[in-house]
Amino acid sequence: MFDFEITAKNARARAGVFTTPHGALRTPIFAPVGTQATVKTLTPAQLAELGASLVLSNTYHLYLRPGDDLVAELGGLHRFMRWPHPMLTDSGGFQVFSLAKTRQIDDDGVSFKSHIDGSTHRFTPERSIRIQENLGADIIMAFDECSDPNDHEYTKVAMDRTHRWAERCIKAKRRADQVLFGIVQGGIDADLRAESAQFIASLDTIGIAIGGLSVGETKDEMHAMLDVVCPILPESKPRYLMGVGTPEDLIDSVARGVDIFDCVLPTRLARHHAAFSADGRLNLMNASFARDERPIDVLCDCYTCRTFTRAYIRHLIVAKELLAGTLLSIHNLRALIRLMDEIRAAVVDGSFDAKKSTMLMQWDNNAVRSR
Amino acid sequence: MFDFEITAKNARARAGVFTTPHGALRTPIFAPVGTQATVKTLTPAQLAELGASLVLSNTYHLYLRPGDDLVAELGGLHRFMRWPHPMLTDSGGFQVFSLAKTRQIDDDGVSFKSHIDGSTHRFTPERSIRIQENLGADIIMAFDECSDPNDHEYTKVAMDRTHRWAERCIKAKRRADQVLFGIVQGGIDADLRAESAQFIASLDTIGIAIGGLSVGETKDEMHAMLDVVCPILPESKPRYLMGVGTPEDLIDSVARGVDIFDCVLPTRLARHHAAFSADGRLNLMNASFARDERPIDVLCDCYTCRTFTRAYIRHLIVAKELLAGTLLSIHNLRALIRLMDEIRAAVVDGSFDAKKSTMLMQWDNNAVRSR
Repeated sequence: MFDFEITAKNARARAGVFTTPHGALRTPIFAPVGTQATVKTLTPAQLAELGASLVLSNTYHLYLRPGDDLVAELGGLHRFMRWPHPMLTDSGGFQVFSLAKTRQIDDDGVSFKSHIDGSTHRFTPERSIRIQENLGADIIMAFDECSDPNDHEYTKVAMDRTHRWAERCIKAKRRADQVLFGIVQGGIDADLRAESAQFIASLDTIGIAIGGLSVGETKDEMHAMLDVVCPILPESKPRYLMGVGTPEDLIDSVARGVDIFDCVLPTRLARHHAAFSADGRLNLMNASFARDERPIDVLCDCYTCRTFTRAYIRHLIVAKELLAGTLLSIHNLRALIRLMDEIRAAVVDGSFDAKKSTMLMQWDNNAVRSR
Repeated sequence: MFDFEITAKNARARAGVFTTPHGALRTPIFAPVGTQATVKTLTPAQLAELGASLVLSNTYHLYLRPGDDLVAELGGLHRFMRWPHPMLTDSGGFQVFSLAKTRQIDDDGVSFKSHIDGSTHRFTPERSIRIQENLGADIIMAFDECSDPNDHEYTKVAMDRTHRWAERCIKAKRRADQVLFGIVQGGIDADLRAESAQFIASLDTIGIAIGGLSVGETKDEMHAMLDVVCPILPESKPRYLMGVGTPEDLIDSVARGVDIFDCVLPTRLARHHAAFSADGRLNLMNASFARDERPIDVLCDCYTCRTFTRAYIRHLIVAKELLAGTLLSIHNLRALIRLMDEIRAAVVDGSFDAKKSTMLMQWDNNAVRSR
């Protein structure tokens, strides 16, 4: 039901096919985020048209609303949101630590208060798996503890707990039509990351996630951690770098051996009127676009760029019309999916390692400067 | 370039074909409203898929933002919003009287303050035509003065002024690829309505609009006015009842000889989580839909009803996801367009007059009770 085959390698970059019960994914792959069982502002038809194949949804959010029992009763997440292609859920761990109002951690699990209504809840490794089984994504995640990467002592404690929780998740898992990924933690400490990679690699899971990055560390620190972790991981398992990333992160991380990515960036940028483009990151609200008859990006093949001018999109933004967010989401998601297609093609034809610095330069004008 | 042919009659109801430079419209027809050069939350592709053929846009709004000069510079409204099918603009008159912050009317025109930023502007009949020529819709409206239908004296003054303004609009109009409709006013006074219908019918215009209804009068009053006006109007000209309506208004008004309608109701209801259905008007936020696996309307063929459950749409609403508005807009617009298709087919096969009371009963559970 699941299979991962590496079809090409170029230096440390890999291209492969990850087969799931809802279809085969060509890796490396970028997954749009559908936090609340919807990729914000887009229909599944629009999502399929822009080339999405894997969609991530958030366990913490769906557990709170509408409730995983309800989703199960209605046939699971694929059926609920009418996305017939592969899906992935996270474990809820990251959101418990980043979104919940308060939390109390012990070795058994985490008690927390909902960010929506302050009600009290408890996640344990077993509970997270049970919720993810109710949701029914193809790919599910072990429950993990995220730490402040600058607090070395706590990072070690959280990593050890994450390892014990990963073992409990493996024991708790029941559905044969889902695969579990263990999660490598260890902050920005090379020794802890190596220890975590070795431990998670030793477990009986189909795939391995790398968590706790893209949470405030520098790009150099992220690269250093990937340089420690990826060489330790078995070649045969798909590697998922959680919550990454920007165009440059995708290029840099595929080059270090990562296969799967997800990030809210494309849809979040869209809500802030920003778009990726060959001319650099554009803020379409800018008055300079008022008479601009070009598409956002002349090289882009998305519905938005095939159809609309920058001037029209700017008008929608200024007039506070919601269609602006839809059109920008379509474009930004397509931009990263096209980039991933380009990366994959280069890995397959053996040119990626030679091309990657050119690709980074091309995308440099779209980079996130704050990191 | 323009032609109106009546292809079937059934009692006072008419079916016809109204040919415009951007395509032929089969009447009776319902036009979705795209106030700011966008039918809220929908792409033109979604709009075409749900069967829309004529779209209305608002002169007042587009004059203020992004400006009619800009729209002209970018190739006109069709090109600006990428709607290649027929379009209609109103004259701005209704919005000046209903939306603008303050207004001062004289025989020459109206000075008003923008509802957006309080800036001062002036519309005259000539200016309204010039703006609508910049926008470039196929069907444009004479500049008219709306009055409080309960103020008889003012209604008479406003009607007389509307007549003189209609003559000035005809003189001001220059583009051969646009047709101008005069507007019948006269409030809810049968004598004034008859006088206005006679006057507007005597003018050299291709079509005739009926304004100032659906603004607070009862349904009986609206019907009475249509019963006065329509028999006076020439058979050969298309008749457009502005700002109407509800499903029952469409049935009742086609029965009285109206050909063209527009209304914000379907998209406005969508923003308030409401949907037309064979089970009556539904508020999809209601908890009773939490586990409801049916589509909004089992008989509907729209993308929303073909794809999603009430439970999923309710989840989107509760989770404040914008996709809810998109899905409800698609459904509500399709519902009125399907109703109009059904009405037209019945006029064509001669069964409408016999069926109309059954149709009214079927839609009774969706009626607007406040009127």
